[in-house]
Parts: sequence; structure tokens; C-alpha cells
Amino acid sequence: MNREQLFEQIKKKKSYLCVGLDTDIEKLPKHLLKFDDPVFEFNKQIIDATKEFAVAYKPNTAFYEVMGSKGWDSLKKTLEYIPKECFTIADAKRGDIGNTSSLYARTFFKQMDFDAITLSPYMGEDSIKPFLEFNNKWVILLIHTSNKGALDFQHLELRDGRFLFEEVINASQQWATPEQMMYVVGATHVERIGEIRRLAPHHFFLVPGIGAQGGDLDAVSKAGFNEQCGLLVNSSRAIIYASNKEDFSEAARNEAKKLQQEMDKLLQWWYHF
Amino acid sequence: MNREQLFEQIKKKKSYLCVGLDTDIEKLPKHLLKFDDPVFEFNKQIIDATKEFAVAYKPNTAFYEVMGSKGWDSLKKTLEYIPKECFTIADAKRGDIGNTSSLYARTFFKQMDFDAITLSPYMGEDSIKPFLEFNNKWVILLIHTSNKGALDFQHLELRDGRFLFEEVINASQQWATPEQMMYVVGATHVERIGEIRRLAPHHFFLVPGIGAQGGDLDAVSKAGFNEQCGLLVNSSRAIIYASNKEDFSEAARNEAKKLQQEMDKLLQWWYHF
Repeated sequence: MNREQLFEQIKKKKSYLCVGLDTDIEKLPKHLLKFDDPVFEFNKQIIDATKEFAVAYKPNTAFYEVMGSKGWDSLKKTLEYIPKECFTIADAKRGDIGNTSSLYARTFFKQMDFDAITLSPYMGEDSIKPFLEFNNKWVILLIHTSNKGALDFQHLELRDGRFLFEEVINASQQWATPEQMMYVVGATHVERIGEIRRLAPHHFFLVPGIGAQGGDLDAVSKAGFNEQCGLLVNSSRAIIYASNKEDFSEAARNEAKKLQQEMDKLLQWWYHF
Repeated sequence: MNREQLFEQIKKKKSYLCVGLDTDIEKLPKHLLKFDDPVFEFNKQIIDATKEFAVAYKPNTAFYEVMGSKGWDSLKKTLEYIPKECFTIADAKRGDIGNTSSLYARTFFKQMDFDAITLSPYMGEDSIKPFLEFNNKWVILLIHTSNKGALDFQHLELRDGRFLFEEVINASQQWATPEQMMYVVGATHVERIGEIRRLAPHHFFLVPGIGAQGGDLDAVSKAGFNEQCGLLVNSSRAIIYASNKEDFSEAARNEAKKLQQEMDKLLQWWYHF
């Protein structure tokens, strides 16, 4: 999916919600365990319940790998079930030397047909390049993450007074255009979002950390919007575990709808500004 | 496996060789394709042929993931086939927020029984901690990698004149002792190995980049040895693809033996020094 198509979806659904499919088999409603593949069944019902309100889905690979080869199959089936108009993100946080990164790119862009993958920048340009060779596929680079440890290295001050995360933005803008690259910017340090928007005015940001991690949708959006919305705001646990009973998909739908309605208002605010 | 046991193996085998099982199904000798699981069959024969000379094996997960759930099974079977006295490393380069890193730790240390996993430091302490909660399991942190892109961020100069990779060493020494943590230090920038050894005198280094990537075993070893050897030097392609014909395992054995013999000499040099 290209940027224009993504923006079309955002306008159509009046939403920039990404639903994180961090499906933990130990947290599933009990009545699903009778299914052959409870994780897929759960995801299927979550997708059906939220697709009206979500423009993107983001399974985190850790939750599937922990189930071994069976989990890998659940991930693949889940991806195939997501409606084609939704943007799909493999939250994999990979990155390796060039010939190895090529294999990861093949895994997530060809063997599976994800639109995007999250990558860690530590190994530099040649660890990212192989992912940029695919048409209409996206790299989503970790810049400023939502966890406490973000401060350990991402906030180190460089010789010229900038922070490491600023140099990651600067360098990576030489590798790819905003048509191919997005940035992960956590909602939990909202004061940074406006600064990062100034450094990268045209890039989409994938923003984790609202809901369970405590970030604030209103503040994040007002600091982060650009001319094409420029935000995909992720919520995982607050949506998919809104209830752990038989009504889980209805509860998920309500949470997703609530977020979409807030997003609709924020988008209106932005376009009248 | 703990550090003392690893050192015992090194002394017994007179080797600090790690064989990288970067098994690419497209590069396998043709006669193996008739097997049900050609990747496992290849690994099995490589392990049998090299186990006399290798103290460690390191499958890189990218090569298995590209085959989907079948590859995940091949990885698991391969791990189970590696003799118990060998140190096993999942070269996975993972790292995520805490609750997600816990799942990766469970995947590689419980669902599979690897001794160690490689991790990327970009997300900081809480992305690494969950892996340190397992007894006799190891984190191998990316410090200074063997690829060209290592220079992009790892070599950024901080305000106090140190490089980023030096601060990663410094910070991570507060998280874990040398009984639980090793460092990835590429062979291709040999001038750095001695410097890094001074910053981390007691840690084991996992050293990729000799062979196909051009690093020099002699220089690496003389710069990197410590009181317990302190090195695991990895070779992947130069061993496992020494021949792509029916004699591939014999050719792999010869390459592994050649490296082990050089290592034996270097260890003797070191212990008489």
C-alpha cells in the first residue's frame, strides 16, 4: 500500500487507529480454547469487530514465536484474514547484516505479504537497505520508543548537542523518502513528538504507548499531525483485552469505536485549523 | 551452560570456534533436496562433521523464518541435535518493550533451550532485563558489529568524547555480570577489539566476520584474549558452504579443523605469554 492509499483510508474511516494484535494465548477468553487455532480465532473475531474503525493492524511477532511453528501459522492466517484495505505491520524489530536482512525482508514482504515491518537502527544503513528494495513496502524505524529504556541510549547527547534519536532521523532520511519509511515515536514522551515532527515533517509516525502504557491521544495528535494526518496510533491491550469473557469482541469494538470517535474529532479540529 | 563450563570446553577442544548455521535452502547441495527436511539434514551432517572442532553453534533465525513454520521446526530439531556440551546461540537480534521481551526470552530459553541469544541495545535496559532472569542463560549484546553500517551510529561521538558503542558497554555492565552477558564485536574492525577488551576485560566476545567478511583470526585473537580465552569466533559461510557437492560435510570438517588448529596455536601462544 502506498502513502496516498493509506491517506485515503484514513479519510474514509475518519480514523488513524492501528490495532495491535499482541495475542497472548494465556490471556484468551476460555471459550476459545476449544478451537483448533484459538489465537487465529481470537484475531479473526477482533478483526471483524474493529475493522470498521481501524486503518491498520500490527501483530507483534513475539506473541506468535512463543508458540513455535504453530504460532507462525497463526500469524500467517491472521495476516491473510485482514481486509486488503487495511495497512499491515509486522512488529518484528529486526535488523542484521545485509545478506541476512534480505532474508527477513523476503520473510515479511514475500512469504508473508505485510505492508511494513518495524526495524532497529543500531546496525546502520546496510541493515535497512534490503527492506527498501520492495515496491510499496515500508520500513518503520525505531526512533524514540515508548519504554523507560528509551532514555538509556536514544537520549544520549552527541558532540554537537543533538540526541542520538535525532541523528537516527537525520541519517535515515538519506536512505529513503517518506513514501517508504515511517518512524516509531512513543506516545509516552509527548514533548518529543512535536520536536520530531519538525525534524521529519512528512513522515508517518507509528505511535505506540496510548492506553495501557499511559500516553494521551489528544496531546499526541495535536503535536504529531501533518498534511496527510501522518499518524498511526496503536492500541493493543486496551482494545483486545477490553473483556476476557464471551463478549470480548463486542468490548473490543466499543473501545476501538471510542478511539475512532476521538480521532474523528481531532481530524476535524486539524483540518479546520 | 555457565562460564566455567564453557571455558572447560574451550580447553578440552583447544578451540573457540563457533559454527554459524546460516543454512540457506537455496544453497544446499542438490542431493539433499530429496530429504523430508533438507535444512535439518544439512545441519545434522554439518554438526556431525564439525563437533570435534567447534565449542559453539549459532543458527541465525532469519534463515529459518524465511521458510515459515517448517523452518521453525527445522530450527528446533537442529537445536535438539547439537551435542549438550556445545554452547548454543540463537542469533536473533531481538529487543522489545519489557512484556514483549519476556515472550522472546520464553521462546528462545524455554520453548527452545538455547544457551544464549543476541540482542540489540537500542531500546535500553528494560528491553534486555527479561532475558537475564533465566539461570545459566546468556544475553549477547550487539556492541560493534561487523558490517559497514556499524559506523553509522555505533561510532557516533558523544558529548564527552566517547563513542556510542563505548557507552553501550559501560551501561550494560550495570545490568549484568560477565557470567550472564557477552558482547558482539565484529572482526572486521580489528583495531577496536583491543580497545573494547580494555573496557570489558572479563566478558566473552562473540566475534563474527572472519572468513567471508574478511576478518583476521590471528589479529582478532591476540587483541581479544582474556584470562578465560574470552572469545567465541564465528565462521558461517566459509565452513558450511566450503563445498556444495556431495562432499560438503567433509569440506566443512576440513575448514573447521583448519580453524581449530590455528586456534590451538593461538591459545598456546597466549598461555605461554
